Amino acid sequence: MTVIEELVHSLGEAVLTGDRIGDRYRSDASLTGRSLPMAVVRPASAPEIAIALKICNEHRQSVVPQGGMTGLAGGANPKTEDIVISLERMSGIEEIDSAGATMTVLAGTPLEVAQRAAETAGFLLPIDLGARGSCQVGGNLATNAGGIRVIRHGVTRDNVLGLEAVLADGTVLSSLNKMIKNNTGYDLRQLFIGSEGTLGIITRAVLRLRPLPDGRLTALCALASYADVVALLKRAQQQLPGLSAYETMWESYFGFNCGAEGLRFFETPPAFAVIIEQCTHGLGGERDAFESFLGQMLEDGLIGDALIAQSEKEAQAFWQVREGHALDRLPSLVNLDVSLPIGAIGRFAEACGAALHEAFPSAHVSFFGHVADSNLHIAFSAPDAKAETLHAVDEIVYTLVGRHHGSISAEHGIGTLKRDFLDRSLSPAEIEVMRRIKTALDPNGILNPGKVLI
Amino acid sequence: MTVIEELVHSLGEAVLTGDRIGDRYRSDASLTGRSLPMAVVRPASAPEIAIALKICNEHRQSVVPQGGMTGLAGGANPKTEDIVISLERMSGIEEIDSAGATMTVLAGTPLEVAQRAAETAGFLLPIDLGARGSCQVGGNLATNAGGIRVIRHGVTRDNVLGLEAVLADGTVLSSLNKMIKNNTGYDLRQLFIGSEGTLGIITRAVLRLRPLPDGRLTALCALASYADVVALLKRAQQQLPGLSAYETMWESYFGFNCGAEGLRFFETPPAFAVIIEQCTHGLGGERDAFESFLGQMLEDGLIGDALIAQSEKEAQAFWQVREGHALDRLPSLVNLDVSLPIGAIGRFAEACGAALHEAFPSAHVSFFGHVADSNLHIAFSAPDAKAETLHAVDEIVYTLVGRHHGSISAEHGIGTLKRDFLDRSLSPAEIEVMRRIKTALDPNGILNPGKVLI
Repeated sequence: MTVIEELVHSLGEAVLTGDRIGDRYRSDASLTGRSLPMAVVRPASAPEIAIALKICNEHRQSVVPQGGMTGLAGGANPKTEDIVISLERMSGIEEIDSAGATMTVLAGTPLEVAQRAAETAGFLLPIDLGARGSCQVGGNLATNAGGIRVIRHGVTRDNVLGLEAVLADGTVLSSLNKMIKNNTGYDLRQLFIGSEGTLGIITRAVLRLRPLPDGRLTALCALASYADVVALLKRAQQQLPGLSAYETMWESYFGFNCGAEGLRFFETPPAFAVIIEQCTHGLGGERDAFESFLGQMLEDGLIGDALIAQSEKEAQAFWQVREGHALDRLPSLVNLDVSLPIGAIGRFAEACGAALHEAFPSAHVSFFGHVADSNLHIAFSAPDAKAETLHAVDEIVYTLVGRHHGSISAEHGIGTLKRDFLDRSLSPAEIEVMRRIKTALDPNGILNPGKVLI
Repeated sequence: MTVIEELVHSLGEAVLTGDRIGDRYRSDASLTGRSLPMAVVRPASAPEIAIALKICNEHRQSVVPQGGMTGLAGGANPKTEDIVISLERMSGIEEIDSAGATMTVLAGTPLEVAQRAAETAGFLLPIDLGARGSCQVGGNLATNAGGIRVIRHGVTRDNVLGLEAVLADGTVLSSLNKMIKNNTGYDLRQLFIGSEGTLGIITRAVLRLRPLPDGRLTALCALASYADVVALLKRAQQQLPGLSAYETMWESYFGFNCGAEGLRFFETPPAFAVIIEQCTHGLGGERDAFESFLGQMLEDGLIGDALIAQSEKEAQAFWQVREGHALDRLPSLVNLDVSLPIGAIGRFAEACGAALHEAFPSAHVSFFGHVADSNLHIAFSAPDAKAETLHAVDEIVYTLVGRHHGSISAEHGIGTLKRDFLDRSLSPAEIEVMRRIKTALDPNGILNPGKVLI
């Protein structure tokens, strides 16, 4: 039997072929996927995934796992000779453990569904990102997806206690640990998180839940220099225990987006604009403490001006500028995602802006970042950009990142789009160890081949 | 040349043999090590460790890495045919990055030296445990050592951003990342943390630093049931943003230690005594908020009584009972370290106490735990205990742990002492994947053989 015949024989209606393969299996949100796979398997359970992988492994058949397809690095895009395993039917919350503050969830559950379930039980699920409505928990874990509010509860991998994954040979590896402390052997869980489906397919997870805030305080501050951005961050981390976001916009970004949205917050355009957000927990005195913190920072000269949102609507206006949807109207917009040691981000942005403008004098280049997480985003648009232009942009940016001891991917992952630049961030020894682990867990190389590693 | 001749030829005075091997290389703090190794290598740098490992690997020579020898699982104990590599000469802080709040430190640095350096720079190094004076940072990472204050900033692995390790074949794997967000490939760092020297020898690390508290508020509370212990924890996590310790003592433990220390805190002995500690950051109103929280908990009936320490001396008296040094005077004392889902700890302690008393009617059995971290310790002492007795205790406790979906090691690791019980916490599939990774990174099995895995 062919591999597809075997899959159909074992899994029946869960296997789609030919015209039944919809266009949505073609590409993630990077829109770089061009091909439909030769089949799509939609299993309903981990044992069904195990059956599918066992068959594919025996046939040396390449497999591409797919979640909500919101990735930005091409990590879930199939080639015509691949078989897609989609987690879309494996959705649901299995348990919320109120005493232990954990949630056990199936990998295909949309993130927002999991967030709502946590809230209903009186908890915050701290994993959060813009694509929450369509991304899936399994994909969030497979890519260690980042987000705007990791400052308080850490990145995705910090919020995962246990994991179930199916290996290339069909072994179901169930490590559904609920304990904070567990020192029994190697941390297999962290190996799968961020491996982009190349080591196994995540099927279930135990996530940490946190106390649910009852509100948010938000301020928009004007700063004169990157040194002040770093100094203010340090003070905020010391004095605002509920600090939940610290979003920095360079003048290039803030000015462009304020102009495009028809918003004006400060008399003169600041060199840096920072959104400071703090969660409240109904403790009393929180708003006073927030205001007096900002007053102190004004007095100390760390900020030149500050606006405190008096309503949800005002806070949304700050975030509207930060989200920068106006940029989407620019031609061939690229949003680059890198990270650097916090102290080096200011120098890097200067050098990067200069290098890009030198190569592309008419380009739009602007910077914003989750600076507390060492994460910088670069928005680039050139009116007459071709594929070669964009490759040159990658080359300029990632080479500079390497020189500043940064990482070519802060939160988007590697996929195919950053794969050829991996050596800018990793040493040959690191890449070789990754290969050894890949071979140990997937000796036939069937899992998401060509992603992350060549 | 023999392996020792080659080592001496390449590393000279760094190699100790014969009478120059001191007794301290025999055993960690479990005092179960009986043998001196055939040589001790004391390298001064990662390249020297690389030379030593390359020679040993070519000779298929087993190697046991040693740090401060404060482990409790036998993980650093050599056999007579092993060669020890001691990190003792690789001590020092390489950099404190104030903008990024990171410290780069050599693996042989005593933890307390690193803590003091962080404090001098105005930061808290959140990794902390009782053995801080003699344990070393590399050993803390290799064992993912726990501690009493992980509730606020996480376990050791959560506070490591970057790592350098030398592999069995002498490859220096340098991943000295300083970024919070970095999604370039597999998380190799977490693989080495907690692997107890079986995958590589950690030589340097980049650690996260946090804001330095200016003081602590401490209370001792009397509670009536384990359900109240869990409910109070949840309220404390919601309402005390600086919560830094939540130490729970069962009546058996609290009563014994109060009696032994001649201390009396409550009119009637409570079923549970809990130390709540909160860090302060000079924000104003922190003491009032702490007191009003406890007042509210009294009113809500979650606690029966509460004492707030009015001085450092009073806080120390609470901690004196918790540290339980009086127990050390009991014959053949064993301190078992397990973890369980938080909601299951109360039931487990009841079942475990009953089973141990049934098997050993005259034994002392008492319980205390870092309940917020799902970590329970069991103190056991029987007047006429032999080796077989203690093995029977392990058997009873770890079998019950398995039944309650817990872990046989919360913070002490596996070493040799818990190795034979690994299957109580891990499935055959998990152990098999650990083996595959071990073989991929150390194909000749020279690194700490017989530790963690058989």
